[in-house]
Amino acid sequence: MRLATRDDGTPDGRLLVVSSDGTRGAAHPRWPNLLAAIGDWSSARIDLEALHADVAAGAGEPLPAQSLRAPLPRTWQWLDASAFQTHADLMQIAFGTERIEHDKPLMYQGLSDRFYGPTEPVPFRDEAHGIDFEGEFGVVLDHVPMGTAAADAIDHIKLVVQINDWSLRSLAVPEMKTGFGWVQAKPACSVAPFAVTPDELGDAWRDGRVCLDLVVYWNAKPFGRANGREMAYGFHQLVAHAAATRDLAAGTIIGSGTVANANYAEVGSSCISEQRAIEIIASGKPTIGFMQFGDTVRMEAMTPAGWAVFGAIEQTVVAAQRR
Amino acid sequence: MRLATRDDGTPDGRLLVVSSDGTRGAAHPRWPNLLAAIGDWSSARIDLEALHADVAAGAGEPLPAQSLRAPLPRTWQWLDASAFQTHADLMQIAFGTERIEHDKPLMYQGLSDRFYGPTEPVPFRDEAHGIDFEGEFGVVLDHVPMGTAAADAIDHIKLVVQINDWSLRSLAVPEMKTGFGWVQAKPACSVAPFAVTPDELGDAWRDGRVCLDLVVYWNAKPFGRANGREMAYGFHQLVAHAAATRDLAAGTIIGSGTVANANYAEVGSSCISEQRAIEIIASGKPTIGFMQFGDTVRMEAMTPAGWAVFGAIEQTVVAAQRR
Repeated sequence: MRLATRDDGTPDGRLLVVSSDGTRGAAHPRWPNLLAAIGDWSSARIDLEALHADVAAGAGEPLPAQSLRAPLPRTWQWLDASAFQTHADLMQIAFGTERIEHDKPLMYQGLSDRFYGPTEPVPFRDEAHGIDFEGEFGVVLDHVPMGTAAADAIDHIKLVVQINDWSLRSLAVPEMKTGFGWVQAKPACSVAPFAVTPDELGDAWRDGRVCLDLVVYWNAKPFGRANGREMAYGFHQLVAHAAATRDLAAGTIIGSGTVANANYAEVGSSCISEQRAIEIIASGKPTIGFMQFGDTVRMEAMTPAGWAVFGAIEQTVVAAQRR
Repeated sequence: MRLATRDDGTPDGRLLVVSSDGTRGAAHPRWPNLLAAIGDWSSARIDLEALHADVAAGAGEPLPAQSLRAPLPRTWQWLDASAFQTHADLMQIAFGTERIEHDKPLMYQGLSDRFYGPTEPVPFRDEAHGIDFEGEFGVVLDHVPMGTAAADAIDHIKLVVQINDWSLRSLAVPEMKTGFGWVQAKPACSVAPFAVTPDELGDAWRDGRVCLDLVVYWNAKPFGRANGREMAYGFHQLVAHAAATRDLAAGTIIGSGTVANANYAEVGSSCISEQRAIEIIASGKPTIGFMQFGDTVRMEAMTPAGWAVFGAIEQTVVAAQRR
C-alpha cells in the first residue's frame, strides 16, 4: 500500500491512498491525515487497505502531483542515524575530524515540526553555510514502548519513506565539537511523496534494510546511485536503540543516515560532502563546492525494474526572504 | 496570567486558566488545549485574559492538583540550552571532559512528544544509568520566523515554565563524544503545573532571564537554591540562536539548561552531577551517588515573597515495567 498527503490548507494535510502506478488517489472519510492514522494503525490499516482495493479497481481521482506534501508534514519525533559506515568514514575525511569510537548506532534528534514536500522550494539564508543534500531512507513507527528489543521492533515499522536530510556543512563541525549535536546545521528535511508499507518493497525489504539504489541528480547531472543494503544496523536495531530509555510516540520517523556504499568510486554518493572526501582521497583536495541558490536536486529509489517506488524528491534551493 | 492543563483523557489535555492563588481553574470553550491556543496566541490571549478576570472575580472550580499534567503534555519542538557557565564548568569536571570552546550558545534538540506532569511518577529501566535531575526554566514561543534577531525574539516569548530535565549520566558522556548529542541519555522531561505570562514574574523577568531562586529538595532534604539570573545568554538570545536556520513552530519550548550560580558553595546546585563536581573540587572525589528507585525530587521557583509562581514539581523515581 502506498500513501500520500495532499495539501488541503491544514497543518497535517489530507491523507490519500495511492494507486499502484502512482497516478490516482482516494481519501478515506475516517482518516483525515497520516498522523491520526498512524496513531491507531491497526484500525486504520484495515480501512485504508479496503480503500486501496477500490483504488486498484479504478476508484479515486487523478493525483495532484504538485500539491503533494511530505507524507507526514509534521510529526512528534525525528531521530536520524548514521548507519552506513562508508558515510561515517568519508565524513571524517570531509570534516577533518577524528574517528568516532562508539559501540552503538550513531543517532541524533532532529526537528520534526516540519518536513518539506517533494517539490517544495527550500529556502536558506546564506550560501556560505555550505548547503548540502543527504539522500536517506526512513521508517515510520507506531507506538514503541521503552525497552523494546530489536527482534520485536521490526513489527513496529509500519511505513518506509525516502528523505533528503538538508545539512549546512559550515555550521556542522563547530556544533559537533560541542558534543550537543546539531541545531543550526540541520534545518528541516524533505520527504518523497509516497510512504509505503514494507511489503510494497518485496524482496528489497530485507533484514530491516531498504535494498534499493537511491539515484541522485544534482542540477540534472547523475551524482550517485548507492544502494541501501549496506547499513551496519538494520532499522529494527535503530528503533531498539532509540527506544532504550524512552517510549517512541506513534509517528516517530527513524532515518538511516546518508546512503553510501564501499564501492563509492563506482556508484558515487548521496551528499556533496562525501564527494568532496572522495576527491580528497584521490587528489588531496576537494574541487566541488556546495549548493548555490537556483540549484536543483532530484532523488528517487529505483527498483530493479526501474520503478521509483517512493516517487521523486525534486527541489530547488532558494534564498530565504530577508528579515 | 497562569495556565494549567488538566487530564481529560486526550493527548493534549484540557487547558485551564488558573486563579492567582493557584486554587481554582476554569476552562474556555474556544481553546481546548494550550497547543491550540499557542498556535493562535493573539486571539487566544484576549479570550483567556477575559476568563482570567472572571476567575479573579470568583469563577471557576477547585483545581484538581493531582490531575494536572504538564502545561504542554506534548509539543512540536524542545530545544534545551546550557546557558549557565557555572553549570558548564562543573559538568566538565563531573564528566572529566575537555572545556567546550564555542562562541555561540550551547543547545541540543530533545524529545518533545512527551512531558511528564508535575506529580507523575517517572519510570527508568536501570539505576546504573545514573539517574539525575536538572532544574531549569523554559519559555514557550509562538511561531518564530527563520532569521529573527534577538531584539525581536523577546516578543515571541509568550509563557514561562519550570522544567526538570531528567538525565542519565552513565549514558551521557559516550553519546556526547560522538558529537551527535544525546538520545538515550535524555529521556522525557517533567514540567511544573503552571505556565505563566512573563508579566506574572514582575521584576523577576529581566533581560530575558527568570531572576528567581529555584529551590530543589532531594528526598525532602534541601539540595539547592540557585537563581536564574546568571544566564550567559538571555532567552531572547537563545531563541535567535535556535531560529538562525529554521522557523520555530508555535509551541516550541526553549530551555535554559541547569540553573547554577558562581557561589555554588553557598547555594548548592540543581543537579546531582554538579554536586559531585563540587565534591571533587573540595576533596578530590565524589561521595554522593545518583537517584535510586523510590527517591523523590521537589523543585519550585520562589519569589522574594516566598511564593512558588510555577507551582511545584514533586516526583518519585520508579522502576519501569520489565519487557
